[in-house]
Amino acid sequence: METGSNKSLYKAGKLASYVKGELIGDPERLIRGACGIKESKTDYLTFAENDKKVKDAEKSRAGLIIVSRDVTESSKDILKVDNPRLAYAKISQLYQPQPFVKPGIHSSSVISNSAHLGKNISVHPHVVIAEKAEIGDNVILAPGVYVGAGVKIGENTILHPNVVIEYDCVIGNNVIIHAGSIIGADGYGYVTVPDSHYKISQLGNVIIHDNVEIGASVTVDRAASGSTIVGEGTKIDNLVQIAHNVKIGKNCLIIAQTGIAGSSKLEEDIIIAGQVGIVDHVEVARKSKVASKSLVTKDVPAGSYYSGNPAHNHFRELKEQAIRRRLPKLVKKIEELERKLKKLEGKIS
Amino acid sequence: METGSNKSLYKAGKLASYVKGELIGDPERLIRGACGIKESKTDYLTFAENDKKVKDAEKSRAGLIIVSRDVTESSKDILKVDNPRLAYAKISQLYQPQPFVKPGIHSSSVISNSAHLGKNISVHPHVVIAEKAEIGDNVILAPGVYVGAGVKIGENTILHPNVVIEYDCVIGNNVIIHAGSIIGADGYGYVTVPDSHYKISQLGNVIIHDNVEIGASVTVDRAASGSTIVGEGTKIDNLVQIAHNVKIGKNCLIIAQTGIAGSSKLEEDIIIAGQVGIVDHVEVARKSKVASKSLVTKDVPAGSYYSGNPAHNHFRELKEQAIRRRLPKLVKKIEELERKLKKLEGKIS
Amino acid sequence: METGSNKSLYKAGKLASYVKGELIGDPERLIRGACGIKESKTDYLTFAENDKKVKDAEKSRAGLIIVSRDVTESSKDILKVDNPRLAYAKISQLYQPQPFVKPGIHSSSVISNSAHLGKNISVHPHVVIAEKAEIGDNVILAPGVYVGAGVKIGENTILHPNVVIEYDCVIGNNVIIHAGSIIGADGYGYVTVPDSHYKISQLGNVIIHDNVEIGASVTVDRAASGSTIVGEGTKIDNLVQIAHNVKIGKNCLIIAQTGIAGSSKLEEDIIIAGQVGIVDHVEVARKSKVASKSLVTKDVPAGSYYSGNPAHNHFRELKEQAIRRRLPKLVKKIEELERKLKKLEGKIS
Repeated sequence: METGSNKSLYKAGKLASYVKGELIGDPERLIRGACGIKESKTDYLTFAENDKKVKDAEKSRAGLIIVSRDVTESSKDILKVDNPRLAYAKISQLYQPQPFVKPGIHSSSVISNSAHLGKNISVHPHVVIAEKAEIGDNVILAPGVYVGAGVKIGENTILHPNVVIEYDCVIGNNVIIHAGSIIGADGYGYVTVPDSHYKISQLGNVIIHDNVEIGASVTVDRAASGSTIVGEGTKIDNLVQIAHNVKIGKNCLIIAQTGIAGSSKLEEDIIIAGQVGIVDHVEVARKSKVASKSLVTKDVPAGSYYSGNPAHNHFRELKEQAIRRRLPKLVKKIEELERKLKKLEGKIS
Repeated sequence: METGSNKSLYKAGKLASYVKGELIGDPERLIRGACGIKESKTDYLTFAENDKKVKDAEKSRAGLIIVSRDVTESSKDILKVDNPRLAYAKISQLYQPQPFVKPGIHSSSVISNSAHLGKNISVHPHVVIAEKAEIGDNVILAPGVYVGAGVKIGENTILHPNVVIEYDCVIGNNVIIHAGSIIGADGYGYVTVPDSHYKISQLGNVIIHDNVEIGASVTVDRAASGSTIVGEGTKIDNLVQIAHNVKIGKNCLIIAQTGIAGSSKLEEDIIIAGQVGIVDHVEVARKSKVASKSLVTKDVPAGSYYSGNPAHNHFRELKEQAIRRRLPKLVKKIEELERKLKKLEGKIS
Repeated sequence: METGSNKSLYKAGKLASYVKGELIGDPERLIRGACGIKESKTDYLTFAENDKKVKDAEKSRAGLIIVSRDVTESSKDILKVDNPRLAYAKISQLYQPQPFVKPGIHSSSVISNSAHLGKNISVHPHVVIAEKAEIGDNVILAPGVYVGAGVKIGENTILHPNVVIEYDCVIGNNVIIHAGSIIGADGYGYVTVPDSHYKISQLGNVIIHDNVEIGASVTVDRAASGSTIVGEGTKIDNLVQIAHNVKIGKNCLIIAQTGIAGSSKLEEDIIIAGQVGIVDHVEVARKSKVASKSLVTKDVPAGSYYSGNPAHNHFRELKEQAIRRRLPKLVKKIEELERKLKKLEGKIS
């Protein structure tokens, strides 16, 4: 770790009060960073969510362990909190390097006169901001970012290198979009006539609400008309495809390489695992979960756990899977039944 | 919608004559845009392909509805045409904003002296055009586009931000390539020897024919030798992978996140749904269709509808799927047969 | 092929000695390039690995054929070697155009004063090199590349256009990364609390070892802590997702659109076919192979060949597949057994 962008040091006592925890150990100990148990280093803190992990952490080189309130003693300094993982997450953010925080506008960027720029923004080399774009306060546009005409970006949002936001899209506050993602490319819409596919112009936009995080090389297409929407607090992993007119609700988790086809709708608090496909015009109701590599072909009721291709109740899918694995034995059993039956028929006729 | 790039207004009468339709309503009504029924606004037109949609559209705020010739009356102004969806598509293009149409060459672009530039081209900031590249008339190179050495681009083609065309590739006329797509990266080819994989240089190129549209973050690899080819009028969605030496015919539709492996061949008028895999060295014959998430492992005959993993006749796959869902019941039936048979055997012996 | 970047011509005799082969033909013949049999041209060489291919090559326009030692005569000039494919690969590299080899630093690039630049590097237009980055000798940074703060890049490495290396990542020697790939975006990690997902800062990095090749639009995420690792000599195809804390060993082959979830581990010499998913926290042991579109949900033993969803022994999967295809017949057989049994029961009771 050589960036020098974050050489933060915090005393254990200060970290304890930051997460409202109880420190059993030296409050003056300097903590240089946060890490997993396996990667632990002297002067770093880690966290342990259960007894086994606590033992692992005690054997590690970590200087301080975040544990749950019920841990009473340890061979190491401990920091007792209600939710060790959450306390770890909060502390981890103190050690986050911020290499793109550089208020100012680099001379190689190209900014339209009609763009409106907020205060304290960091505009890095080779950024382009087109006509009438509006950039909120404290926004960071990393090198090579393109912000299209009429785009609105809220406050404290960061676009990593080479992100593209095409015209008229709207990005909220505190949004993170990782490198290479493309927001607002045309949706895929044609009318097939003899000898060609005639393009339907995609006249809508994309709206990304507050506190969304979007991974690297994600594509979110603009609506044919109206808006493709990603709801507040939703987190999208890398290489995900969101088609035109999709509506995604609040606080969904959408894992890598998933694709959601046109006009489908996800309500709130949904978890879509990796490499899932969701066909067009279906609805996934709130608090549902879809397992990796499933294909959702029809509406998913609220609170369901779906899997398979086509996706259905996960526990039925597990049962089906188990039987599929026994198919060779079942075939033998059927053949045996046939033989026995034939024998019986011989005896009786 | 704030771009200001397209503030077009058309009178209903003018739109009617543009699509050779019959207007029943006010020819002087100003239409500001085109949209779906759900997104309709006053002064916008929409389209309705059947009776139910006509009723929905009548209840909407739309100012004008495109309908089929057999609709005789409506509570709203209507525009009667042979093919409402096609007429809508044609009119939608009149309202398409064109934020990248800016003839001229931005001073921050870097253009080789040996490149040949057509007339009326728009070269945006931070574009690079390498040696001996040839750019046709009216071409648009959006910010951050890279055009490699010896690349040829036909007329009226648009490359969206950060598209990369590596050396020697050929792009036709009226091609649209969306942001972040990579044309002409090396194909994936190695000779495995003890302790390493030795690279086979990829000495061919990619040829994209006229009227092709390629989505965002698509990868089309250069051939090992010869050319990887995308045929005229083919439309490719986002995040698709086209491997080296693939040949795709005319007017195919290839939906998001599909991958086509090395040297496979698609004839014409084929539809490949989302997240499909096509293994290497297979041929998919004309007018075939492959359903979402299928894996094509062998040649597909003309006019087929394939699905499954491995892919086979879609209707057989549906039958197989239905039986898979009944497997727990089948197992019980087999167990019952066993019991009954045993009982019979007991009686007879 | 118009680049002019590589107009190499080699005499057949020179090529023969380069690959330690035996030439039967004219050593003075000029060879202009290397190509497959189907694409062969006069004055080009090709290769033929078996008798059938030799016949095909003899019918082609190729000027010289690389063949195995046991070929004794031919209607064309031949070059006899131990491993024709390997000899072809070696010769192909002589004809590789090198459009990005341009030692020097383009004036439009933006380089931090604290960066350390090796000798003979090619820094193309619109490249950004951030603070304290270290660039080895002979490195090529193509247009639009971003090299983050504290990044280290070894010697002879090439980053194609628009590649992004985020802060603190380490790239080895002789590495090739194709256009648009993103190394070191944040891993996907959150703590879910009521009404939101709280971000866990991703404080680790990515280490890419020597001789790795990474395709276009690949994403390799930085570790939560510690490092995500791609081992020496591993070759990754396009649009692959490597999640945080994944460890990939030496000389693996990972084909397009595969995704490997967090903390999973691949040992050495593994082949992962296209569109495979590997869930988090599993281990794939050395010399294993996983077939296309499989989902690996548990550890894979060394030397296995796995397929299916969930993945298991490939030969068992083939058997299961075959039975799945016969399910409609099996159902009929069961129904027949039922009828016959009923009949028997009638006779006996």
